[in-house]
Amino acid sequence: MDQNFAVTQRTKLKRIPDRASYDRATAYAILDEGLIGHVGFVDGEDVYVIPMAYARQGDRLLLHGSVASRLAKRLGEGLRISVCVTLLDGMVLARSVFEHSMNYRSVVCLGSAKVIAEQGEKLEALRVLTEHLLPGRWDDARQPNAKELAATTVLALPLQEVTVKSRSGPPDDLEKDKARPHWAGVIPLQLQPGPAQPDALAADTAVPDYVTGYRRSAT
Amino acid sequence: MDQNFAVTQRTKLKRIPDRASYDRATAYAILDEGLIGHVGFVDGEDVYVIPMAYARQGDRLLLHGSVASRLAKRLGEGLRISVCVTLLDGMVLARSVFEHSMNYRSVVCLGSAKVIAEQGEKLEALRVLTEHLLPGRWDDARQPNAKELAATTVLALPLQEVTVKSRSGPPDDLEKDKARPHWAGVIPLQLQPGPAQPDALAADTAVPDYVTGYRRSAT
Repeated sequence: MDQNFAVTQRTKLKRIPDRASYDRATAYAILDEGLIGHVGFVDGEDVYVIPMAYARQGDRLLLHGSVASRLAKRLGEGLRISVCVTLLDGMVLARSVFEHSMNYRSVVCLGSAKVIAEQGEKLEALRVLTEHLLPGRWDDARQPNAKELAATTVLALPLQEVTVKSRSGPPDDLEKDKARPHWAGVIPLQLQPGPAQPDALAADTAVPDYVTGYRRSAT
Repeated sequence: MDQNFAVTQRTKLKRIPDRASYDRATAYAILDEGLIGHVGFVDGEDVYVIPMAYARQGDRLLLHGSVASRLAKRLGEGLRISVCVTLLDGMVLARSVFEHSMNYRSVVCLGSAKVIAEQGEKLEALRVLTEHLLPGRWDDARQPNAKELAATTVLALPLQEVTVKSRSGPPDDLEKDKARPHWAGVIPLQLQPGPAQPDALAADTAVPDYVTGYRRSAT
C-alpha cells in the first residue's frame, strides 16, 4: 500500500496547502485516536450529517448501526458518503481577532460503503469496533449472539480518497501586531476521562485496568 | 418563538424516539457548549463534511470562513446544508457487547445559509463568534479592520429545522445478562483545557482570567 493517498480532483485542497497532507500514517493515527465520525450522505434533496462510532480495520473504515436506521439502510445502498473525524487540540489566541484559530487534526474520507454480510467477517468487524472504542473490552463482555448480529448492519468504507488537515503550534500574528499588549498563545484542549461510574449492580465489582487506565491520546 | 422546533418530514426521527427532542432550549444549550460543527454540503456528485467553528446568535447559526474557501463559496450560494454539533459525554459499558453505547448530546440543523454582507452586521457576527469560542476575548484583542473583514465570509443559517438526539445514564443490560460478572457502567468523557501556553512574546504577560478559567461545560 502506498505511503500517500492518491490526490484526486475531489480531495485536492485548494487553500492553505501547508495544512494539508495525504500521508497514510498520519491519517490512520488520527482515525485510531478518534471516537466519533461525522457521516454525510444525501437522502432525497437533502444532505444529512450524523455522528457515528467507527473503527479502522486495516485500509478500511468500519461503521455500524441498527438495521432499522435510515442511515445504515441508505449507506448500504452504496451511495457516495463522506466521513469526517476531527480531534480538537486547542484554542489559538492571536493578538488580532483575525488570526485566531484552532489547533486540530482532521481526516475526511470519501467513498462508498459496502455491507459486510458474511457472519465471521461481521463478528470480527464488531470485535474491531469494540476494541477501537474500548481496548480490552471484547473479551470481558458477552459477545453478540445470532439475533444481535442480525439486528446490526456493519459497513466498510475503503480508505482510498482521504485528506488530512491539521494546525498546530502558536498563533501567527502579523509583525505590526506583535508589540500589542494582549496575551497570546494556546489553550490546549483534550478529551479526558473522569472516574468510572459503576452501574447499580457493579458497585462491588473490581474496576478493570482497561477502564481505570482509559485514555485516547498518545500524549 | 415556539418552545419546540416544528417537526418536518426531514427532521422526524423514526428510530429510538425517546432519544430525540425538538426542544429549543435543549438544542441551544448544546450549540452554546460546542466548539466545532460538522458541515455537510453537496458539490457536484459528492457530499463533503468539513469541521467549522460556529456560534449561535439568537435563532440563527453563524459560520465563517475565508472568502477563498470552496466551502464558504458554496454555502453562500444558498444550497441546502446540514450542520451537526456533537458533545461526547461518555462510554457506556454494558455486560453484553450489543448494549454498549455512548452518552452524547447532538444537534442537527438543516437549512440554507445566507451571506451576511452588511458591514455592521458582519462585525457583530464576528464578535459573537469570538465570544462564543473565547468569552472575554473580543475586547482584549485587535478587532478586524476593513481588509480583514473583506477577506472573511460570514454566513447565517436560520435555526428552523433542528433535531436533538442524546443519551445519558447507565447501560441498559438485558435481564438475562445482569447476573454476569463483568464490570458495567460509564466512563465519563469531557473536553478539558490544559495549562495555557504563552507564545514566545507573551511569556511575561499576565494571563487573563478568561484564559486561566476557560471551560466549556456548565458542570
